[in-house]
Amino acid sequence: MTTVSIIGNGNMGSAIGGIVAAGGNSVEVIGRDLSQPITGDIVVLAVPHFALAEIAEARRAELAGKIVVDITNPLDFETFDSLVPASDSSKAAELAELLPESRVLKAFNTNFAATLASKSVGEAETTVLVAGDDTVAKQALIDVVRAGGVKAIDAGALKRARELESIGFLQLTLAVQEKIGWTGGFAVAA
Amino acid sequence: MTTVSIIGNGNMGSAIGGIVAAGGNSVEVIGRDLSQPITGDIVVLAVPHFALAEIAEARRAELAGKIVVDITNPLDFETFDSLVPASDSSKAAELAELLPESRVLKAFNTNFAATLASKSVGEAETTVLVAGDDTVAKQALIDVVRAGGVKAIDAGALKRARELESIGFLQLTLAVQEKIGWTGGFAVAA
Repeated sequence: MTTVSIIGNGNMGSAIGGIVAAGGNSVEVIGRDLSQPITGDIVVLAVPHFALAEIAEARRAELAGKIVVDITNPLDFETFDSLVPASDSSKAAELAELLPESRVLKAFNTNFAATLASKSVGEAETTVLVAGDDTVAKQALIDVVRAGGVKAIDAGALKRARELESIGFLQLTLAVQEKIGWTGGFAVAA
Repeated sequence: MTTVSIIGNGNMGSAIGGIVAAGGNSVEVIGRDLSQPITGDIVVLAVPHFALAEIAEARRAELAGKIVVDITNPLDFETFDSLVPASDSSKAAELAELLPESRVLKAFNTNFAATLASKSVGEAETTVLVAGDDTVAKQALIDVVRAGGVKAIDAGALKRARELESIGFLQLTLAVQEKIGWTGGFAVAA
């Protein structure tokens, strides 16, 4: 059994926790109190993008060796017109720089919370796209997601986080403009 | 009735031509002979990304005032690991610079040809995402697509072509690695 620690109490964290639990794996919910210890092998940082740096800084030693999952959509939320990381980088790449001893993955950022909870995007099944450089770590997360009854695809190296963040960004702009709903968005058909 | 001129004889051009014709609009297929005149109001450049510059150069005056649609996925096809345009730009933005008198749109690059022909992406209906700065031009293309029985969404300003190209890029990498099929890919659920 894998223990997944989820930092953050929002709707994404709780939807991801639901998938983990549905697969018979163990969920440890951790708030924003930086002193609460983390015991999981997989740590999902279900917090807004601007909160990642502080957590990484405070928990660098504790997260060493662990699989750390960045789920953020690093938009400039004032303009809703650009991503914050440099255009040739990604939030996940920045996090990997802050946590050189951790096994950083990008996942879940292309899924709205409602589609993780319902396991469907409109008529289609929900698929989680996972990018990362550590293939063993990536497979461990994919296994947990699939055990929970949700599809998962290896989307490539951590470099592909840039494309995943572009998808998440476009999806958010479409939802905010009511061109798609929060129960819809991008589905992946095999 | 709108006349859509399609430059290029490949599977994308013929799938797009099929949608145009299905909607009762007129299709003019134009090969790569640069001397053949273009009569359509909407011109789809259904050619590989590296062929755009020559066409733009040769046909700049002729394309002035027309709606010009870039459908390319500007990948580095040797490495399949990056997009060719600068990371803060897009092929569509580059084309707009080459054709300052034209009304440049980005569309169809997130759709595999088979999904345009079948009107379905796996179980979901095919949706064409259209980006551009000229809202009248964008609506004209959206109307043609919808008349042909395919969904279309206004994906925002031409700046969003970068995100559309990121989606097309990731989709191609997944298909080439056989993680999705050429009849699948990203669907958009409302």
